[in-house]
Amino acid sequence: VTDRTASDVTLRVHVAGAGLIGTSVGLALRGRADVVLTDVDEHHLATAVGRGAGRAWDGSTTADVFVACVPPQLVPGVISAAMDSRLAAVFTHVASSQSRVQLQVESQVPDASAVCGGHPLAGRERSGPGAASARLFHDRPWVVCPGTSTSVRARDAVRRLAAECGAVVIEATPHDHDAAVALVSHLPQLAASAVAAQLLNGAATALDPLQVAGPGVQDTTRIAASDPRLWVDVLRSNAAHVVPLVRALSDDLRDAADALEALADADAGRRHADAEQVEAATERLEGLLARGVAGRARLPLKRAGARDVHVVLVSVPDRPGQLAGVLAAAAAAGVNVEDVRVEHLPGRPRGLVELLVAEAEVRRAREALASSGWDVVDAS
Amino acid sequence: VTDRTASDVTLRVHVAGAGLIGTSVGLALRGRADVVLTDVDEHHLATAVGRGAGRAWDGSTTADVFVACVPPQLVPGVISAAMDSRLAAVFTHVASSQSRVQLQVESQVPDASAVCGGHPLAGRERSGPGAASARLFHDRPWVVCPGTSTSVRARDAVRRLAAECGAVVIEATPHDHDAAVALVSHLPQLAASAVAAQLLNGAATALDPLQVAGPGVQDTTRIAASDPRLWVDVLRSNAAHVVPLVRALSDDLRDAADALEALADADAGRRHADAEQVEAATERLEGLLARGVAGRARLPLKRAGARDVHVVLVSVPDRPGQLAGVLAAAAAAGVNVEDVRVEHLPGRPRGLVELLVAEAEVRRAREALASSGWDVVDAS
Repeated sequence: VTDRTASDVTLRVHVAGAGLIGTSVGLALRGRADVVLTDVDEHHLATAVGRGAGRAWDGSTTADVFVACVPPQLVPGVISAAMDSRLAAVFTHVASSQSRVQLQVESQVPDASAVCGGHPLAGRERSGPGAASARLFHDRPWVVCPGTSTSVRARDAVRRLAAECGAVVIEATPHDHDAAVALVSHLPQLAASAVAAQLLNGAATALDPLQVAGPGVQDTTRIAASDPRLWVDVLRSNAAHVVPLVRALSDDLRDAADALEALADADAGRRHADAEQVEAATERLEGLLARGVAGRARLPLKRAGARDVHVVLVSVPDRPGQLAGVLAAAAAAGVNVEDVRVEHLPGRPRGLVELLVAEAEVRRAREALASSGWDVVDAS
Repeated sequence: VTDRTASDVTLRVHVAGAGLIGTSVGLALRGRADVVLTDVDEHHLATAVGRGAGRAWDGSTTADVFVACVPPQLVPGVISAAMDSRLAAVFTHVASSQSRVQLQVESQVPDASAVCGGHPLAGRERSGPGAASARLFHDRPWVVCPGTSTSVRARDAVRRLAAECGAVVIEATPHDHDAAVALVSHLPQLAASAVAAQLLNGAATALDPLQVAGPGVQDTTRIAASDPRLWVDVLRSNAAHVVPLVRALSDDLRDAADALEALADADAGRRHADAEQVEAATERLEGLLARGVAGRARLPLKRAGARDVHVVLVSVPDRPGQLAGVLAAAAAAGVNVEDVRVEHLPGRPRGLVELLVAEAEVRRAREALASSGWDVVDAS
C-alpha cells in the first residue's frame, strides 16, 4: 500500500451534516482520523463537537475525504459546492438509495471521478447527534457503490473510511445496492406498515382483536413504527426497484385471496367445484406459503443449523433482574443462549422469557433453570 | 357455586387427541383434575401418558368435559361419537377458527346444547406430545365461544377447564373470535409468508440481498417459517373473515405502488405531473404509512408509556454466558430491562444485544454496563 490514503497516514475527514450518521462517523473515527464538522444547524454542530465527534471546520482546512451526511436530494449540490471550493480530494455520501444520486452527481458535479457513494446499513429509530454512537457502524455492512465514472482512488478512500468506522465493507454497483435494499428493507417496511394499518379496522365486534394479539403480529408489524415522511422519501428515491416488488407482493396476496375464496365457495357448496379445482386452489395457496418458508430459510438467522435450535420457555415475575437471573442460571450451566425474547402479557404481573438454545442443550437448560427455582414452562 | 362443576369437586376430563394441545391440557391439569387420554396414534398416547398427562382411557370411564384436540374437520364426528357413547356431560374443542365448526356441530351432533367451542391461543412452532407443556396456556388467552344453542352449563364447564389450565378466559361469539384471529393471526401469517416468498427473487444481481439483511426483515418474516399444510387448513376454515382482509391489504399495497410510480414518473420527467398530482400521490403513500404507525400503536407492546422506552446496544463476543453477563450487570444496577433482542451478525464473531429500558434508566444502564467492562455501543 503506497498511495496517499495508506493506513499509516492519518486520514483527514470533512463531515458535512452533524446528524445521527455524520456525528457517528466522527465518533467512530476518534483517534483514527482528523475530523472537521459542518452543519447548517448550529445546535447540532455544537452537540456533535461537544460529544467529541470532531472540531468545527475553520473555513479553510482541506481533507482527504468529504462525507455528505445530508438528505439525498441535497447531496449533489453539497458535493458540487465542496468540490468548487476544493475542500477534499474525494467525495462521498450516505444515501439509502444510490442510483438516483449517482445519476445526479454525474450530470451536476464538476468531476464525477472524485465521487464514490456509500451506504452504511445502520438505521436507528432515533435521529440527531444526541443519538449518535461511535459503534453505530461496528460490524454492520457499509455498501461502497462506485459509479462507472468513479476513480479507483475515490473508491479506495471510501472503502478505507468505512473500514476505519468499523463497518464490514461490501462493494456493489448503485443498481445492485438499490435492488438489494428494495428487497430486504424497503419492501418489508411497506408490508409491515400495510399490515399494521389493517389493525385500525378491528373495533367493529365485541371482542377487541388486540386482546388476542400474540408475538406473531408483534414481530410482523414492529418496523411499522417509523417516520412516514422519512419513508416516503426513501421509497420514492428507490421507486424503480420498489414498485415491481410491491406489485408482486400485492399480486401474490390477491391470488391467495382468490384461491381462498374458491376453497370457501366449494366448502359452502356455493359453487360447483370439482376435486381438480379445489386441488388447484389448495396448491396455489400452499405454494405461496411454501415459498415463504423457503425465502425465510435464506435469512442468516442462526449461526449454524437453524433446524436444531429449540425454545425453552420460562415464566417470570415482571420486575427488574428476572431476565438476568434466568440467563445467569443458563450461563452457570454452560448453556449457550442463541437468542432471547421477552413477552409482556398485557395486564398480567408475569412475563414469558423465550430462550433459544441448541437441541443438544435443551434438557440441560431446563434442568439447570428448574433446579435454580425458575418456572420453566416445559419442565413438568 | 353449587352446581356439579363447582371447584371443590375434582373435574373429570377426557382428552381425545394427545398432540401438543391435548397433552398440554393433561399436563396443565395434573393435580387439578382427573384426566383420561385417547389417541388413534398409540405412540402419541404412550408418550403423553409417559409424560404424566393422564392415564389411557379404559374404554368405559365417563367425564365431566370431553375435549376434542383433533383437526377441525374431525371435530363434529369425534364429538358425535363421544356423545352417542355418553362419554361426558359437556363437549368442547380447540379449533383455531370457530364458526364453521359450530355450524357443523349444530347440524350433525345429537345435542348441540352440550357443546361449547374454545380456542387456547398458545400456538407453538412445534407439534406433538413431546413438545407439550404444563404451562403452555399459562396467562395466555383462551377464548370460550358458546354458540346460540350452547347451554350455560356447557359454557361454564369450558370456562372452568380453561381457567384450571391457567389461561386467561375470554368469552366471545364464534363470529367475533374468528374476526379477531383473522386480523391478528391469519392476516399477519399470510403477509409474512408473502414477504418472505419475495426473498427468493433476490439472486439476480452480483450483490446477494441477504448480505445486507437487517433486523427489520428478520422480524417481519419470522412467522413465515410455519407448516404450509397446517396453515392452508387454518386459513381455509376462516376464509370468510380472512379473504376481505387479504384483499384490503393487497389493494393498499397496489395503491402504494401506483402512488410511488406516479412520483417516480414525475421525478424522471416521464409524465407531466403538476404539483397537485405529486402532492396527492405523496399523501396517499404517507397516509398508508401513518395508518401503519397508528395501527402499530394499538398493540400492547409495552406495559406503559411505550414512547419512553429506549435502546441500549452492547456488542458481545458470540459465545456462552455473554448475554447473561450483560443482563446481570444491568440488574446489579437496578435497571429494569423491558425487553431484549440479540442479533447475530452473519459470519462475524460478535453479536449485538439490544436492551430496551425506560428513558430515565438509559444513562444508568450505560454507565453500569460500561463500568463492568461491557462494550456499550452508545457509551462514547
